[in-house]
Amino acid sequence: MRQIAFLKMNGLGNDFVVLDGREPGPALSERDYRAVGDRRRGVGYDQFLTIEAPKNGGDAFMRIHNPDGSEAGACGNGTRCVADLVMAELGKDRIGLETVAGTLICERLDDGRVRVDMGPARLDAAEIPLAESVDTLNVEIPGNPYGPACCVNMGNPHAVIFVEDADAIPLSEIGPKLETSDIFPDRANIEFATVRGPEDIRMRVWERGAGITEACGSGACAVLVAAARRGLSGRKADVELDGGTLTIEWREDGHVLMTGPVALSFKGTLDLDTLT
Amino acid sequence: MRQIAFLKMNGLGNDFVVLDGREPGPALSERDYRAVGDRRRGVGYDQFLTIEAPKNGGDAFMRIHNPDGSEAGACGNGTRCVADLVMAELGKDRIGLETVAGTLICERLDDGRVRVDMGPARLDAAEIPLAESVDTLNVEIPGNPYGPACCVNMGNPHAVIFVEDADAIPLSEIGPKLETSDIFPDRANIEFATVRGPEDIRMRVWERGAGITEACGSGACAVLVAAARRGLSGRKADVELDGGTLTIEWREDGHVLMTGPVALSFKGTLDLDTLT
Repeated sequence: MRQIAFLKMNGLGNDFVVLDGREPGPALSERDYRAVGDRRRGVGYDQFLTIEAPKNGGDAFMRIHNPDGSEAGACGNGTRCVADLVMAELGKDRIGLETVAGTLICERLDDGRVRVDMGPARLDAAEIPLAESVDTLNVEIPGNPYGPACCVNMGNPHAVIFVEDADAIPLSEIGPKLETSDIFPDRANIEFATVRGPEDIRMRVWERGAGITEACGSGACAVLVAAARRGLSGRKADVELDGGTLTIEWREDGHVLMTGPVALSFKGTLDLDTLT
Repeated sequence: MRQIAFLKMNGLGNDFVVLDGREPGPALSERDYRAVGDRRRGVGYDQFLTIEAPKNGGDAFMRIHNPDGSEAGACGNGTRCVADLVMAELGKDRIGLETVAGTLICERLDDGRVRVDMGPARLDAAEIPLAESVDTLNVEIPGNPYGPACCVNMGNPHAVIFVEDADAIPLSEIGPKLETSDIFPDRANIEFATVRGPEDIRMRVWERGAGITEACGSGACAVLVAAARRGLSGRKADVELDGGTLTIEWREDGHVLMTGPVALSFKGTLDLDTLT
């Protein structure tokens, strides 16, 4: 019997198993992370989030694992979920949540949504990265008939293309072609966005290595930054993804704030030894 | 707060939320079944199984709901899971589990696997049903280059095609074509099977209305019956599906017995009012 108690949470349908690693319990192996990640034989998740004691002056440390058992650097929607738990536990409305990629400042708003400082948007060609030293405001991607992309790095590379109707784009066809263009040495997340008003943007995302997903927090940040750079929107807007809406703000100091909902699906217990 | 406590179980990866409806608790609406069925915002399941008090002399009644909230008639892998729970509760190794489609006799074997009497195989053309009154042993399906099918009704229609290597068949292409052939007025589940020995059959399934699935209990029953009718196997064999192996026996009285594993994934609690 290697029993664990966990929470299943989600932000815009991006879903997480959350384990309080500050409590005594079994250590998880790569095989355990994979077994829990099986949506039919285990629990299923996009990321497995373990809350640990803070190591660097923050309020808690969040370790992130992928369903293949590997460790990940950052996860905006998951950060909101864990921040919500830690704020409730500590009776705080603002905390520092440590990750392997640095400490993220998180706040709870009066409406219950949680805001995360996603760090600065990076806009230089070498920082995206792009293969050529061009202006990231207008990047021609070979084979893209929808006009130049605006490229933004939010910890990962994004190429945002503004179109009249993002919902009419054949994303499953064009997404993988643009993702793997030679112009992106690390590949790129591809966003198609439609600015419906200065504070209202619709977007769809082709995620690097994952394909079409319902929600990509860093993608929503990249879209708002790109829209503001192009003068299509202000520095704060609601960004509607397939999974729901995030409010994104590009602060004057370059940091991007992402605000969105947090939901608890269920509480569970399982025995790692009986999962197959 | 409309809280429920549930178990998540599976048989060969065919997965179930199991609720003990004999305990006091909230009544579930169609919307609730759909919300719990969401694999990212709820729990996720192939069927939602509710254990109720017996109504007709059996040991318990099992109600079956689909993820769209509609009620289903039968589910072999789910029957094993609920039977395992009820047998453990009553300290019995043999029970009658009532469903809207009748009472199923279930037994626990010494190795922990559970055997369910799936009822009689029906072999007449009108019972499959087929559009024409032909011999169900060899049915030519227009557009099928893999040889005649052997048709069996196990509560639902099946067409079994024996080939040299079931794993080499382009199932996602040929499956939907055969499923919807005019010869099947109620459509049909399509099985490709390879007899590797008198007690060893490999199969893959295209499920009516669901596509390729890892495990289809009634399909495994149909495959064994078809193999025995063709003289390719005995009346008892192990049938290997993508999700695992079932032992199928076609008893002399025409009933088909399905034996397979049962697994508990986790125990959970959730509040129906907070699912979105």
